[in-house]
Amino acid sequence: MSEELASRALREEIRSCRFENVTSGQAMGFVQANLVVVPQAYAFDFLLFCQRNPKPCPLLEVVEAGSVEPQRMAPGADIRTDLPRYRVFRDGVMTEEKTTVQDIWQDDFVSFLLGCSFSFEKPLLDSGLEVRNLTDGVNVPMYRLNIACRPSGPFEGPLVVSMRPFTPEDAIKAALITGAMPEVHGAPIHMGNPAAIGISDIDKPDYGVPANIREGEVPVFWACGVTPQEILLNAKLPLAITHAPGHMFVTDLREEKLKMFRETVR
Amino acid sequence: MSEELASRALREEIRSCRFENVTSGQAMGFVQANLVVVPQAYAFDFLLFCQRNPKPCPLLEVVEAGSVEPQRMAPGADIRTDLPRYRVFRDGVMTEEKTTVQDIWQDDFVSFLLGCSFSFEKPLLDSGLEVRNLTDGVNVPMYRLNIACRPSGPFEGPLVVSMRPFTPEDAIKAALITGAMPEVHGAPIHMGNPAAIGISDIDKPDYGVPANIREGEVPVFWACGVTPQEILLNAKLPLAITHAPGHMFVTDLREEKLKMFRETVR
Repeated sequence: MSEELASRALREEIRSCRFENVTSGQAMGFVQANLVVVPQAYAFDFLLFCQRNPKPCPLLEVVEAGSVEPQRMAPGADIRTDLPRYRVFRDGVMTEEKTTVQDIWQDDFVSFLLGCSFSFEKPLLDSGLEVRNLTDGVNVPMYRLNIACRPSGPFEGPLVVSMRPFTPEDAIKAALITGAMPEVHGAPIHMGNPAAIGISDIDKPDYGVPANIREGEVPVFWACGVTPQEILLNAKLPLAITHAPGHMFVTDLREEKLKMFRETVR
Repeated sequence: MSEELASRALREEIRSCRFENVTSGQAMGFVQANLVVVPQAYAFDFLLFCQRNPKPCPLLEVVEAGSVEPQRMAPGADIRTDLPRYRVFRDGVMTEEKTTVQDIWQDDFVSFLLGCSFSFEKPLLDSGLEVRNLTDGVNVPMYRLNIACRPSGPFEGPLVVSMRPFTPEDAIKAALITGAMPEVHGAPIHMGNPAAIGISDIDKPDYGVPANIREGEVPVFWACGVTPQEILLNAKLPLAITHAPGHMFVTDLREEKLKMFRETVR
């Protein structure tokens, strides 16, 4: 299969419900994205929330009301059908998970695609670092912090981070590598002292699976794309949609092109 | 005078109409910003325009309807009075320049502060490069290109660039230095061939003063904060406000802190 088609072929499988799993490790080399969908009436506030909180919400593309196609990152795709699993939020409660949201789609929905840490794990591996959650084949541990996001309208709440353990030397390398990738959360926000950012028990993450921190390693924390899901619990919109954790939107943008995404004017 | 007060002191002078000049060279070391003000009804579309066109419109802060104070970059400041000169746009025509806009301010106005190339000229000088417009003490030449911005709602039109001449070797250094400053337009968008980007006569800029290009030098082009003023001519909003070119909003943010602005979560 040509590289050109790997992402589109996967989306076709997803659209026809032949693939319903997590997208990690699928269509390797293509950027995957977090999804947040809100009604137009809340779109300015959420767009501003992303602008004010670029670490957890690095915005890649916005699909306006009346469209379901991310023209820049995945021409021909359909936001309503092309993710393997969605979460539906009603009045601040996550009420259900679904494999399509065509039946509840509204003409006034605006869709936001946010960068995802999947895109920085390969560069870490390529630089010779070990990424524990990949080694162990489990979901990364995530924690709600005592650091508040900068609010915008009804959108407010705690920053959520993912954690990966490294030796201090490798942690510095990981900070340099990811610091050069602001499109996918950028540099870590903290390393070393979980208590200092409001984590009382590192073995009890709020999402995901606890990581095995070995002798001589420190926990390293990155802002996480699950943050908007926490924020939606607080915002209590009548209706909103996100991807289900790990079940991302697969774009046609090659990961190597992400670095120059912001610099491209035509 | 303490560094802490240089930017605030200048804003006080401006507010009381004792200073009405261009801000270039004033309150040295503090970030200066382009201003765009639009009614709330157009704020989502303009915010999205900035997100889609980060090279000409690198968004630093948004002041929501009902407020006139950029709380993050200049606490205590007043957007309506603290710029030395404003431009007023009515139905797509630049109708007047004013030294305050308090009298025409509307409760539904949303203000956008965008990064300005003033912030990258000092790092160029500090690296030993000559910046021709500073040497000659004139405004930089600016050109309307045949490259379209990515549209959003009524906001569409050509990219505007500023030009500074360098030897090819210095142009490469300038690309590296500014490429590391995406908050203030980032790397150049072109160098060498004006005709390739739609400039028919390099000696006839659309704004500013022609630059003296010496033997062995090439013109180097950066996306420019004047772009939104071109865009407002097309968008034909009933009322919108910008700074007058060169008469910027002076913030309390030190230029050295701009690099980590995006990385800061508390």
